[in-house]
Amino acid sequence: MPVRYTLLKECQQTGARAGILHTPHGDIPTPVFMPVGTQATVKTMSPEELQELGAGIILSNTYHLYLRPGHELIREAGGLHAFMHWDGAILTDSGGFQVFSLGPLRKISEEGVTFRSHLDGSEHFLSPEKAVAIQEALGSDIAMALDECAPYPADRRYIQDSLERTTRWAERCLQAHRRPDQALFGIVQGGMYEDLRRESARQLVALDFPGYAIGGLSVGEPAEVMYRMLDVTVPLLPVNKARYLMGVGTLDYLIEGVKRGIDMFDCVLPTRIARNGTVLTASGYLTVRNAPYAGDFRPLEEGCHCYACRNYTRAYIRHLIKANEILGLRLTTYHNLYVLVRFMRQIRESILAGSFPELYNEFAARFGRKEER
Amino acid sequence: MPVRYTLLKECQQTGARAGILHTPHGDIPTPVFMPVGTQATVKTMSPEELQELGAGIILSNTYHLYLRPGHELIREAGGLHAFMHWDGAILTDSGGFQVFSLGPLRKISEEGVTFRSHLDGSEHFLSPEKAVAIQEALGSDIAMALDECAPYPADRRYIQDSLERTTRWAERCLQAHRRPDQALFGIVQGGMYEDLRRESARQLVALDFPGYAIGGLSVGEPAEVMYRMLDVTVPLLPVNKARYLMGVGTLDYLIEGVKRGIDMFDCVLPTRIARNGTVLTASGYLTVRNAPYAGDFRPLEEGCHCYACRNYTRAYIRHLIKANEILGLRLTTYHNLYVLVRFMRQIRESILAGSFPELYNEFAARFGRKEER
Repeated sequence: MPVRYTLLKECQQTGARAGILHTPHGDIPTPVFMPVGTQATVKTMSPEELQELGAGIILSNTYHLYLRPGHELIREAGGLHAFMHWDGAILTDSGGFQVFSLGPLRKISEEGVTFRSHLDGSEHFLSPEKAVAIQEALGSDIAMALDECAPYPADRRYIQDSLERTTRWAERCLQAHRRPDQALFGIVQGGMYEDLRRESARQLVALDFPGYAIGGLSVGEPAEVMYRMLDVTVPLLPVNKARYLMGVGTLDYLIEGVKRGIDMFDCVLPTRIARNGTVLTASGYLTVRNAPYAGDFRPLEEGCHCYACRNYTRAYIRHLIKANEILGLRLTTYHNLYVLVRFMRQIRESILAGSFPELYNEFAARFGRKEER
Repeated sequence: MPVRYTLLKECQQTGARAGILHTPHGDIPTPVFMPVGTQATVKTMSPEELQELGAGIILSNTYHLYLRPGHELIREAGGLHAFMHWDGAILTDSGGFQVFSLGPLRKISEEGVTFRSHLDGSEHFLSPEKAVAIQEALGSDIAMALDECAPYPADRRYIQDSLERTTRWAERCLQAHRRPDQALFGIVQGGMYEDLRRESARQLVALDFPGYAIGGLSVGEPAEVMYRMLDVTVPLLPVNKARYLMGVGTLDYLIEGVKRGIDMFDCVLPTRIARNGTVLTASGYLTVRNAPYAGDFRPLEEGCHCYACRNYTRAYIRHLIKANEILGLRLTTYHNLYVLVRFMRQIRESILAGSFPELYNEFAARFGRKEER
């Protein structure tokens, strides 16, 4: 088994749990946030910087790498780890989410999805088998089964058909998957219907994947709906396998996800807002590119020990961003990733110490749920 | 004296010399190439990376910093070193070159230059006294006197008037300069007229600056003309003071400058071409963004020990650049600066070892003069 999950401790009052995700590229303490390296690079960062700030696993996008530079080239390079000089763990998505996001540019059939490249309009076909083959060429530690991330809102009939197809695709992925040093995770769908979420979870658990993702959430639904879907889904997933909530990475979503038993998260938001000049702090968002920070010689976040906060002021970073200087984007990205890694570490330590509920209450009191969305 | 030059060794057959430039922020082995950090950052690089690749002194641009974020803000921040978190030496130009490059947007009088900002069109006035005051606020180790970098080509009458005004401005700069921990260098002008270069040099040497730059070269004239101007100018400059050739940074110009007794150089070209996907190698330019490198798993330059070459392939860096990923620009920039620092170190060692002529001949045989322009 290339990837295993060891449960270390469960919270007595909530679903939160601390564990270790064992991968061919290192043991990852969970819960964990995975920075997104869409095009075989976490935007603006070097691999050494990711290591230094404490990231042990990153996510990369199959759709993008398939189109450019092509998975065969990456295979020739010795796989994605060698290609991008990253020795930590890598999870690749299936390409499905991006393809389904293309809207009118794609067409679904039982066989798979036909889509047009956002780069040059060329036509491509993605099937469960092909999604697996591409990810085997990439050589990620964790590959994802091809699923349909259904639109939101969508009617019950559509979601029912879609989740059943997703299960059939999941089976085909399992059949196709060969690589012994790579784990293949299944993805639970079911839209915003509690019973369909349960149905999808049961079907996928029956296929005995080494880990499970929950997909199709954080797609525009109210937070309460997402939390309810987690509440009904997570308890059906095996205790001894990792659970991954896809596309989620704001502080409140992270802690709410952990509270419901999620181990893994990813999201482009923290790095994307960084490049727009907004940083995360323990007291909320701070848009350092705004005028009030022009003469502010404090660090991005007071008390933060990250490279950016130890060495640079808001005034300097604002100047860099206003002047379109790349170092500005490096520093805000570094800080935001550091904050998420730090937050997950803090959560994990509280679970291990038996004090997660206190941490959760303190967080909720500080922000309420609305603040950080 | 805040900045001194120690001559260590002169070449017996050429004008080349090795020395040390002592500054309040460290001793700089010369000859030296200074990376350009126009807006208080060497584009894409962190200060730690500059240190790691061996840069001890960088250049920053007064014109840009005066307009944004403003020299008063930088003074408040504790000066440019503190503002940008750079503990090495800094040389600032006077702002003159940029202002004179604005063309129709500026007007020269005896008093100074009126110009319009390239950012917002606002009107500003730069005088010798103001150029000094701004640089004192920035707190660079070496400030430059305000000069007129005359257009090329220009008639003799214009150049004569211009160089004499430059001398009067240089005197006013000396009069205005107060900061005891900052050196003020004079700038020799004189266009492409040998006798006017000599006249300018004599006038400035009479003012007894702690160091001298040669300006107004590499502005479009043939290389041979530039070399001739150096041949007539450098011998008139004091042996015990540093000599700086402004705006020059291709490999052939560097070695030809050193051969004629130059100690310091700066140029945006190596970092600018890096951001366009072109790198320097011992055998010439390589445009890694081009298609032939798509599947090339060699480093940018075989045998190079820089961070980029030790860890990444041409194929990966090409992918990053094609995909507009910032890490690509970081890696090409890192490599190009490393190559220049390595080249200057190699030149310096050959001077100290008495073998500069052999190095020069080997270089000339490898490239001819035309190749690297």
